[in-house]
Amino acid sequence: MAIPVPALVVDVHALDHNIRAIGETLPGPRLRPHVKAFKSTALARRLADAGHRAFTCATVREVEGMAAAGLGDDLLLANEVLDRTQLQRLANVDALVTIAVDSDEAVDRAAAAGLSNVLIDVNVGLPRCGIAPGDAGRLADRARSAGLEVRGVMGYEGHLMMVEERSKRIHLVEKAMTLLLDAAAQVGGDIISAGGTGTYDTNTWASEIQAGTFLLGDSQYQRLDLPFRQAIFLECSILSKGDGYVVANAGLKALGMDHGDPLWPEGQVLFCSDEHITLVPSPEQATELDQRIRLVPAHLDPTVARHETMWVVDGTEVVDEFPVDLRHW
Amino acid sequence: MAIPVPALVVDVHALDHNIRAIGETLPGPRLRPHVKAFKSTALARRLADAGHRAFTCATVREVEGMAAAGLGDDLLLANEVLDRTQLQRLANVDALVTIAVDSDEAVDRAAAAGLSNVLIDVNVGLPRCGIAPGDAGRLADRARSAGLEVRGVMGYEGHLMMVEERSKRIHLVEKAMTLLLDAAAQVGGDIISAGGTGTYDTNTWASEIQAGTFLLGDSQYQRLDLPFRQAIFLECSILSKGDGYVVANAGLKALGMDHGDPLWPEGQVLFCSDEHITLVPSPEQATELDQRIRLVPAHLDPTVARHETMWVVDGTEVVDEFPVDLRHW
Repeated sequence: MAIPVPALVVDVHALDHNIRAIGETLPGPRLRPHVKAFKSTALARRLADAGHRAFTCATVREVEGMAAAGLGDDLLLANEVLDRTQLQRLANVDALVTIAVDSDEAVDRAAAAGLSNVLIDVNVGLPRCGIAPGDAGRLADRARSAGLEVRGVMGYEGHLMMVEERSKRIHLVEKAMTLLLDAAAQVGGDIISAGGTGTYDTNTWASEIQAGTFLLGDSQYQRLDLPFRQAIFLECSILSKGDGYVVANAGLKALGMDHGDPLWPEGQVLFCSDEHITLVPSPEQATELDQRIRLVPAHLDPTVARHETMWVVDGTEVVDEFPVDLRHW
Repeated sequence: MAIPVPALVVDVHALDHNIRAIGETLPGPRLRPHVKAFKSTALARRLADAGHRAFTCATVREVEGMAAAGLGDDLLLANEVLDRTQLQRLANVDALVTIAVDSDEAVDRAAAAGLSNVLIDVNVGLPRCGIAPGDAGRLADRARSAGLEVRGVMGYEGHLMMVEERSKRIHLVEKAMTLLLDAAAQVGGDIISAGGTGTYDTNTWASEIQAGTFLLGDSQYQRLDLPFRQAIFLECSILSKGDGYVVANAGLKALGMDHGDPLWPEGQVLFCSDEHITLVPSPEQATELDQRIRLVPAHLDPTVARHETMWVVDGTEVVDEFPVDLRHW
C-alpha cells in the first residue's frame, strides 16, 4: 500500500541498529528510556523486549498509557505535578509510579493524593525544575516524614546535550553530576537518574540514563559524534514545480519547528509553510510531480507528538505500523 | 470547573469583536474564511451565522469535516491535490467543492477523479504553488476541455502579509494583484480569490478574501495595524520556582514554534522545552506555585492544530467548548 502523506516513516533497520547500539553501552536497567521522544507503546515494548523495562515519562497521560499497555514495571514521571486532579489520576494508575518533586508543595500534595514513591529533582545547571542541591536533603526528610518512599535523586543536564566537543562535554557533565552526587549523598536511596541521548555515554556518574532521541533521531542530534542512525523521516510528495524550486505537500503542522526547518538530503529547504515546504533540488536531483521524498525532522519529540501513526518501512515497503498512542502531552 | 492545562482558551468577547470587525470591511461572501487557522467547525458555524457561508480549506480532511458539519455550501480547497486516493475522497464529498490547480497533471487527475470545479492557482510572487500568470489561460482551456467548470482564479500574496508599513503594503499588494487580474482576464469565471488577515482591508482587488487568523490572533499579527483583538491564549500553571524565574507546565509540544516563543504579557519567556516554559516575571508580578497564567502563541495555525479542544471563557469562567475537530492536517 502507498502511505498516505504527509506521514512519519521509520526505517526498521536503523531502528534495530539503534536499539542494539545503546544496549552495548547501557544494558538493561542502565537505560531508562524516555517515552516523551517517541510516544508509542509499541516502540516502548521493543525496548522492554531488549531488556530495558523501567521507563521515563514526561506527562500523566504517558504514565497512564504505559501502564495500560502492560509496561508499568517501573515508571518514573520525571516532572513535577501540583494539580490535584492529575495527582489523583497518577494515584489510580496500576503500576509502580515514581514522580519527581522539587518543592514542599509538590511533596505535600503527592502525599495527600496517596502517591508512594518520589525522586528529589535537583537543579544541576539547567534553569528549569529542580531544587537547589543544598536543599535536597531537607526535602527528602520532609517527604519521608509525609510517608513517601524516597528512591533517590534525578537531575537533568539538558543544557549540556548539544556540546559538540566530546572532551568539553565530559568535563561539563562531570561538574553537573558532582552537584547531583552531593545531593544524592544527603538524600539517600538507590537511584541517581540523569542524562539523555547527548550524554548517554559520557555521563558515567548516574546510575541510569533517561535517553529517548537515540531511538529515532533528528537532524539536531546528527551533529554529535553518536553511533545512532537516522531512523525517522517525514515522507511527502511533490505537489507543484516552480522556477528552480519544487513544493512538497507537507508543512510545518506536521513538524516540530523549534529547532528550525527539516533537512532534505537531496537539496535545500527554502522555507516551510503550514501545509507546504518549498525545496530547491540539488542540480543532480531529478524531481517530478507526485514523486515521494523524505525529510529529516529538526526536533524529534514535538514532531512525533503531532502524528497519529508511524509507518515502519524496509526501503519503500511498509512492514509494520506504530500508533503514536501517547501523542499530544 | 478548572480547565485541565496546558490548554487553549478563547476569550468570547474578543472573538465576538473580531467577527463583527471583519464583517464591517468584508460582509457576507466578500470574506471566505480560511478554516486552516482555527480548525473547528463550531467556530466556522459562528462565521456562517454571521453571513460568511463560503469557506477556504487547506486539506482534504478539512473539506470532509466541513461538509460533514453541514457547512458545505461552497468549499474551496485552496491547494493542489495530485494523490488519486485524496482526489477520490474529494469526489465523494457531498458539498460544492472547488479545488486549486496549477499544472496539467493536476487538471487531468481532477477530471479523471470526477471532480467538477476548479480555480486556476496563479503565482503572484510567493515561491510556492501557482502557475505563471501568462500560462493561466492555457491551463483554463485545458480544464474546460476536460469537462471541468473553471470558476476563476486564486493567488495568495502570502509574502506580503507581514509588511508593517501600510502604504508599502498597499503598493506591493496592488502589484501582486495586477498579475492576478491579468490572469483572471485570460481565465474567465467570477472568482478572484486572494488575501489573508494581513491584507484583508488593503487587498481591494480580489472578489473575496481568504482570511483566518483575524478570528483568534497571534503575536505575529499583533504587530500589524489591524483592528482585531487577541482572542486565544495557552493557559498553563506554574509548576516550579527557581532563582529569578518560574517554570510553567506547558511546553513547545502545545505550541507552533516556527515564529518563535510565545509572549507572556506579565514577563519574559526565557526558553521553551518540550513540556516546560521557563519565564522571568516582571518585577511587579507576583507569582506563586500552581497559579494560572496565559501566554500568547506566536503562530496561531500550527498551535491550534495540536490541540483537541478550545475552551471558551468569559474571564476565568468557562462558557463553551469548541472541539478542534479539523486538527492535524
